[in-house]
Amino acid sequence: MTSISPLAPASFPEMPPVAGVRFSTAAAGIRYAGRTDVLLALFDPGTSVAGVFTRSKCPSAPVDWCRARLKGGAASALVVNSGNANAFTGKTGRMATQMTAKIAAKAAGCKPEQVFLASTGVIGEPLDATKFESAMERLVADAAPGGWEHAASAIMTTDTFPKGAAALVRLPSSAVTICGIAKGAGMIAPDMGTMLSFVFTDAPIAPAILRKLLREGVEDTFNAVTIDGDTSTSDTLLVFATGAAASRGVGKISSANDPRLVAFRKGFNAVLANLAEQVARDGEGARKLVEIVVEGAKSKKSARRIALSIANSPLVKTAIAGEDANWGRVVMAVGKAGEPADRDRLAIWFNGIRVAHKGERDPAYDEAAVSATMKKPEITLKVALGLGKGRDRVLTCDLTKEYVAINGDYRS
Amino acid sequence: MTSISPLAPASFPEMPPVAGVRFSTAAAGIRYAGRTDVLLALFDPGTSVAGVFTRSKCPSAPVDWCRARLKGGAASALVVNSGNANAFTGKTGRMATQMTAKIAAKAAGCKPEQVFLASTGVIGEPLDATKFESAMERLVADAAPGGWEHAASAIMTTDTFPKGAAALVRLPSSAVTICGIAKGAGMIAPDMGTMLSFVFTDAPIAPAILRKLLREGVEDTFNAVTIDGDTSTSDTLLVFATGAAASRGVGKISSANDPRLVAFRKGFNAVLANLAEQVARDGEGARKLVEIVVEGAKSKKSARRIALSIANSPLVKTAIAGEDANWGRVVMAVGKAGEPADRDRLAIWFNGIRVAHKGERDPAYDEAAVSATMKKPEITLKVALGLGKGRDRVLTCDLTKEYVAINGDYRS
Repeated sequence: MTSISPLAPASFPEMPPVAGVRFSTAAAGIRYAGRTDVLLALFDPGTSVAGVFTRSKCPSAPVDWCRARLKGGAASALVVNSGNANAFTGKTGRMATQMTAKIAAKAAGCKPEQVFLASTGVIGEPLDATKFESAMERLVADAAPGGWEHAASAIMTTDTFPKGAAALVRLPSSAVTICGIAKGAGMIAPDMGTMLSFVFTDAPIAPAILRKLLREGVEDTFNAVTIDGDTSTSDTLLVFATGAAASRGVGKISSANDPRLVAFRKGFNAVLANLAEQVARDGEGARKLVEIVVEGAKSKKSARRIALSIANSPLVKTAIAGEDANWGRVVMAVGKAGEPADRDRLAIWFNGIRVAHKGERDPAYDEAAVSATMKKPEITLKVALGLGKGRDRVLTCDLTKEYVAINGDYRS
Repeated sequence: MTSISPLAPASFPEMPPVAGVRFSTAAAGIRYAGRTDVLLALFDPGTSVAGVFTRSKCPSAPVDWCRARLKGGAASALVVNSGNANAFTGKTGRMATQMTAKIAAKAAGCKPEQVFLASTGVIGEPLDATKFESAMERLVADAAPGGWEHAASAIMTTDTFPKGAAALVRLPSSAVTICGIAKGAGMIAPDMGTMLSFVFTDAPIAPAILRKLLREGVEDTFNAVTIDGDTSTSDTLLVFATGAAASRGVGKISSANDPRLVAFRKGFNAVLANLAEQVARDGEGARKLVEIVVEGAKSKKSARRIALSIANSPLVKTAIAGEDANWGRVVMAVGKAGEPADRDRLAIWFNGIRVAHKGERDPAYDEAAVSATMKKPEITLKVALGLGKGRDRVLTCDLTKEYVAINGDYRS
């Protein structure tokens, strides 16, 4: 459909299996022809689970299903399909989630309540859950460790490359592995896309601790990425901890003060950050990866709001697509954020070149140097407010004619 | 530069002079060649003034100037220039406003404090106020009643047509006139554009009442229009009441309970609504005028937030550009607004055709009929939430490749 994003990594990363997790994929013909569209993950007994979801007031049926099942904190299986989001499908949609969970539970020999679900694709069309029935026996039979690239490919929609990331964390007794996959640049195409991400580790971590790690970890990773400010009905990030590393002498992590969490959190956040950046690199029509850094704000929260105001401004994003260091539009976006800002203290940099200073164009402004740096595929836009110590950073991409073409020509 | 918007009115409206106001325009060479770029309005003694401005935390120097001068409530002159916004120009910018007001006051024989200013155009470049010096004597000498189309043309930047609207209000003693001009689709091009609007009436209205009328009037007119969610540093709406109708027996309106305000408010709001709609019709790259109606919300405020979430969604706007009745994206935009909404009660119409009902695709959905209506130049998108009696409406336009071209190719 579209060519691979010019911002894509050179290749899919090397990723080891995670003990206690097995995968398989199938082509169930949900919407696509000639490609896989179902991913099954099976977990060893004792696997903990935590999740965060879209804040949309109109979430998809699988999001409702997962939220209700998370309280138990235990997972046996995960079923993800692409091609149909099972969103805005009413009672039919709820029944489809129940049926999918039952089919998977029967084949995997577990309770439906321990089956987690995610769907991505078209909104508003009924999902035919009977399609899982014919595929499920073989999916369970074929499930095997590893196979990350196949897993990441089965959940793609408008993605132009599969997304994976891994970290090895050395704990005193033994190393543990953290591997994750993701799809879809979040909010960019709720018809056919949505942000889904699944992270797996063999570390033995209690559900409450996993929840805390996840809540804290998303804040500066997935929650700091925006493509167009639109929020999918289906965004889902689930993390599964199989605990299989216990057999290698890694004791259960059940306290938030466990000193091993320092290293684990670092690896975990690195995986989340890597996946989130890949999502930005695959924004629809993206030609530039844009990092917005705001410093000198009244607080981190204020810096985040200003950074998002800049990152979501169509005028800033089109200027970057046009390789134009249009700092006037950055001033506009700072001004509209509604956060404390003093025009006469503002300074703005593009890739380290200061273009505005103390409320005016930088006296040393060099159009040639600025134009040259704007041609690079990665742009860092820094704003210093000069008011306090609040600092934050978000990732986004530019807004190109291809974005409009992909989203405007889509069904016509 | 660009051709006239396909949504433009057939011609500039017939507009009578407003007693007590005289206009003249000049080509001062601020940035453009071969066109007028300065508008002067002179007011008879006793003219009341009220204003509303951008909520940007980084307003332009003329916005700061006007805010400080409005307390007096009296106006003698208005100077507007296009080509340079005098925004993000620091101390130089403040000095330019002082100098411009002094030059105009000297030529018009009034106090600088009664001169109101607005500038629109490039951000961050110093405005050379000495350019007004050579033009001002002749501007004052040439000032004459009427000439609305010339006035509206002098303040244009990326506008593709001049914008004017008029209303005649019959009061018991005599009729009064309300005429207004506007430019720039608000937030769409803060480099070269900004929303400016100036409304004039010969009705004798006290400043406090004028302020109240304006504050209430903008709420469902200018504040209910969005092009891309971006907010200019310079948005300005000033209303001037010369009181000249007093000589025709119209007594001063100084109480908010004055019964004549019923008719006046109606005419005044109609002029604001007409001008605001013209701004939407001239959104950059616009090919469709889009009215978003939200009803059944918990409150009017909640309905407004949901309507703006839909109106500012790039995915909804690109879908409309592609003539795609993509109600899945509307659901997404309702969901992300953060306001009360129940997926299973939602209903959505495009131009009166219901496409979604009770959380699912409408059972009677007819793709051919929907596709046909989406080809029209005016689209009404209605969402019923089924929760309460809150209702609101906003205007916007579609998001086309031309928008990206205009804003992305601009300086490159």
